[in-house]
Amino acid sequence: MRQRHKPWADDFLQKHADTVISNPYNYNGRWQEVFTNHDAPIHLEIGTGKGQFIVEMARQYPDVNFIGIEVAKSIIVTAAQKVVDAEMPNIRLIHVNAENLTDLFARDELSLIYLNFSDPWPKNRHEKRRLTYYTFLEKYQQILKPNGEIVLKTDNMGLFEYSLESFSQNGLQIEEVNLDLHGIDDPTNRMTEYEEKFTAKGQPIYRCRVKNTESVNL
Amino acid sequence: MRQRHKPWADDFLQKHADTVISNPYNYNGRWQEVFTNHDAPIHLEIGTGKGQFIVEMARQYPDVNFIGIEVAKSIIVTAAQKVVDAEMPNIRLIHVNAENLTDLFARDELSLIYLNFSDPWPKNRHEKRRLTYYTFLEKYQQILKPNGEIVLKTDNMGLFEYSLESFSQNGLQIEEVNLDLHGIDDPTNRMTEYEEKFTAKGQPIYRCRVKNTESVNL
Repeated sequence: MRQRHKPWADDFLQKHADTVISNPYNYNGRWQEVFTNHDAPIHLEIGTGKGQFIVEMARQYPDVNFIGIEVAKSIIVTAAQKVVDAEMPNIRLIHVNAENLTDLFARDELSLIYLNFSDPWPKNRHEKRRLTYYTFLEKYQQILKPNGEIVLKTDNMGLFEYSLESFSQNGLQIEEVNLDLHGIDDPTNRMTEYEEKFTAKGQPIYRCRVKNTESVNL
Repeated sequence: MRQRHKPWADDFLQKHADTVISNPYNYNGRWQEVFTNHDAPIHLEIGTGKGQFIVEMARQYPDVNFIGIEVAKSIIVTAAQKVVDAEMPNIRLIHVNAENLTDLFARDELSLIYLNFSDPWPKNRHEKRRLTYYTFLEKYQQILKPNGEIVLKTDNMGLFEYSLESFSQNGLQIEEVNLDLHGIDDPTNRMTEYEEKFTAKGQPIYRCRVKNTESVNL
């Protein structure tokens, strides 16, 4: 995604520190405290981008608490603006790198993780950067509850093939596979900005849902 | 596949009882005896059809013994004619239903199973007939060696999605997924008659390879 320099971003993030949590590592193990509903399951979106998906999901599922993380500052401000405008109590954003997940969340703290249109890193030498590389999966398994789920969507065939293999080889059971998400009628599906663009071009969108069946001790 | 009545089929099969084994249940546990090379691994193709795949594979891998099973008599004679013409010592055919696999083969007798362009049985009420329904997978796991593999190819998106889910949920680990087999350059791939036809039409061919990682006691 093209990132424009936004000189006002720091001021904006500081002003909305209740939406984009400024000291996220302090909440490890007690993320429920940042939400109005302390008993709702927490769903995490990794790579929230401009925020359309998480805002629409939060509207669709008011009994779920959503956290979005996004590493690009110039992009997370757009998502933050959407969240502020929507005035919803069940979304918080974090401006961090996904590498740091296990410092952010305690064991079993999350019920579900969304990986939406992650960078495919197609070159073999960049395999380690893919968000479904096993080192990332180990982190997800640590912070997900037993039987917690990961839902991945992408338009990239290579990343999807790789991810199915990686999930299966690392103890994540494949619950559902869709090779043409918009060829079926799934009224619960919410689209990201990318997804709308690719779908308009007629490109297939791939989706899978996997379950954390193995307990991982790290 | 359209089946023509072939009045000469019975005579043909009787004449070539060394190619299309006439008493296959007698060989349970001792299939190596029907081949010249008694030490080669056995690969089974379920639904051999007209035999192009198995004949080309047997030529490509002379150190593997191939068995093809096909339930339709009018079709297996075509495969048998190809095998007879090819004069290869490493192919045998069986005219049976895949339901009977565990009566045909002993535990751990096979190294690999090919499922090529199986009937997709798209209706939910026919799920039990799909060759990747769990009752079939249990049979495959029983007759496959530990770490033995299943390789599935299909042009049917629904069957492929279903099969990935079914494999993963029944202890078969996904080693490799291809969502457009002919989009990559795999010189080892041999095409079935169906595959040639669908590929010529530009339809994607799906392939996956899974591994028998769990021991199943039935």
